[in-house]
Amino acid sequence: MTGTAMTAHPRLSLNQATVKYADLATALRVTGQAGIASIGLWREPVAEAGLREAAKMVADSGLRVSSLCRGGFFTAADDGRRRAALEENRKAIEETATLAAAGAPGSVPVLVLVAGGLPEGDRDLPGARARAGDAVGALVDDAAGAGVVLAIEPMHPIYAADRGVVSTLGQALDIAEQFPAATVGVVVDTFHVWWDPQLDQQIRRAGRDARIAAYQVCDWITPLPPDPLLARGMMGDGHIDFAAVTRTVTEAGYAGDIEVEIFNQQIWDAEPAEIAERTAKSFATHVGPALTTRTGTRSQS
Amino acid sequence: MTGTAMTAHPRLSLNQATVKYADLATALRVTGQAGIASIGLWREPVAEAGLREAAKMVADSGLRVSSLCRGGFFTAADDGRRRAALEENRKAIEETATLAAAGAPGSVPVLVLVAGGLPEGDRDLPGARARAGDAVGALVDDAAGAGVVLAIEPMHPIYAADRGVVSTLGQALDIAEQFPAATVGVVVDTFHVWWDPQLDQQIRRAGRDARIAAYQVCDWITPLPPDPLLARGMMGDGHIDFAAVTRTVTEAGYAGDIEVEIFNQQIWDAEPAEIAERTAKSFATHVGPALTTRTGTRSQS
Repeated sequence: MTGTAMTAHPRLSLNQATVKYADLATALRVTGQAGIASIGLWREPVAEAGLREAAKMVADSGLRVSSLCRGGFFTAADDGRRRAALEENRKAIEETATLAAAGAPGSVPVLVLVAGGLPEGDRDLPGARARAGDAVGALVDDAAGAGVVLAIEPMHPIYAADRGVVSTLGQALDIAEQFPAATVGVVVDTFHVWWDPQLDQQIRRAGRDARIAAYQVCDWITPLPPDPLLARGMMGDGHIDFAAVTRTVTEAGYAGDIEVEIFNQQIWDAEPAEIAERTAKSFATHVGPALTTRTGTRSQS
Repeated sequence: MTGTAMTAHPRLSLNQATVKYADLATALRVTGQAGIASIGLWREPVAEAGLREAAKMVADSGLRVSSLCRGGFFTAADDGRRRAALEENRKAIEETATLAAAGAPGSVPVLVLVAGGLPEGDRDLPGARARAGDAVGALVDDAAGAGVVLAIEPMHPIYAADRGVVSTLGQALDIAEQFPAATVGVVVDTFHVWWDPQLDQQIRRAGRDARIAAYQVCDWITPLPPDPLLARGMMGDGHIDFAAVTRTVTEAGYAGDIEVEIFNQQIWDAEPAEIAERTAKSFATHVGPALTTRTGTRSQS
């Protein structure tokens, strides 16, 4: 990618979901061409390329790897499905280690975990939540052995029934704190957590133990599109105060890559190269400035 | 209403929003005909009938009044709009007192308050939340003077941007507890709070101080309909464990009417009488049984 004129914010990472229709080769290419130094990968396009080939492509790209999305989905109540989910997550742990090792220096072996929803016909939310915590516990040794960080992602309560029963950062930390911080952390995704009255205190709590394994940004837009899974917007298009959240995350000690992860049909319909450029621009406008603020300035003023 | 063969659960109240297309006369009639003894009123159909005439109709119906919906919407940042919102809420307080006095014995003067969303272009969520709390404070003396209870309704985080910046029961209680429990309480609406990992502890907290001013039920359905304002379902059609929540609310000391409040196009399109009957049936199946459990049995077993 030498010779490209474009540069993006050095901490920006393009999560592959933002260019959903691009294959891995295209995603790596447009990320580099937009001057973005880091990428968040997804298991499906990696599997399409094949893990070994994918790792080679990542190495050739010169990009950092900021995470692999995603493991989890382990709320099934019956034993067969639970065992299958754990096996799938063990594969994902290995993939995470392989891809992070292939990435440029600064890559991190972070596997994003989404809990999964209530099983069909099951209304026992506390039960499903307990199983999600148990599953993390069942994977901790595998993750530690592979040097991988399990990053529990609390999801917006809109998804509590059908996608993710871990609904707040506090709840994710309640699970994570049962295990060593080197192996189990949390994801702070603005879309999922921006509304939480306890957001600041829970980000600080996560920071004390260095549990923030990933920081993802995208906006909450209204009116909500008909498909709530595609309700995310580019930063600046919605209601989230990115400067405020970013400062809190920074003051909590997070200094890693920041992923832009957007599920949005209109964005997906654009050319991947254009999406990557727009992402870099939006990040520079709405997130970048909050990163230049030195931490601790509040107490110095 | 003597002579009607139907009876519903004695604590069921039909919130008027569930029969949205019925005028006040029709709503009162179908409620009584379905054997439901209580109704939750809305300001708009009351205003259509005229407050004095509405009070007379309520008195003639023999029904209890369980609440008036709704006041609030006081997050505007500019002074003119804030003053206008407070004036509107003072009117709603008077209406609440008048209608509750007209209702059958057991009626309660409860005004449901919805905070309102972020003002256009405003991303300062903590600021909007602070204004919502201030507005409650500005109305406390008026409410106390009229013998009315202000019931702060936390809304599902899906509405945090555009409808209600009070997002959790804990946050509603943080506001309510600044004022006397006789005048400021909270609404527990299953649709809004069912996902909250802190639900049980916050219901118990509300109960200790007798702050539960209203308990409303309806279901969370998936897939979410295109309009998230109309995403509510009849009890049993979705994912909420009504027995569990109802037991917790009961054990917290709430013994008042329980409103069924459903915003759902398909339900609204049915005949009001049919909706009322279906509501009574669904309530009897999914909520009623949990009300017959004696409180305290847990510690006796």
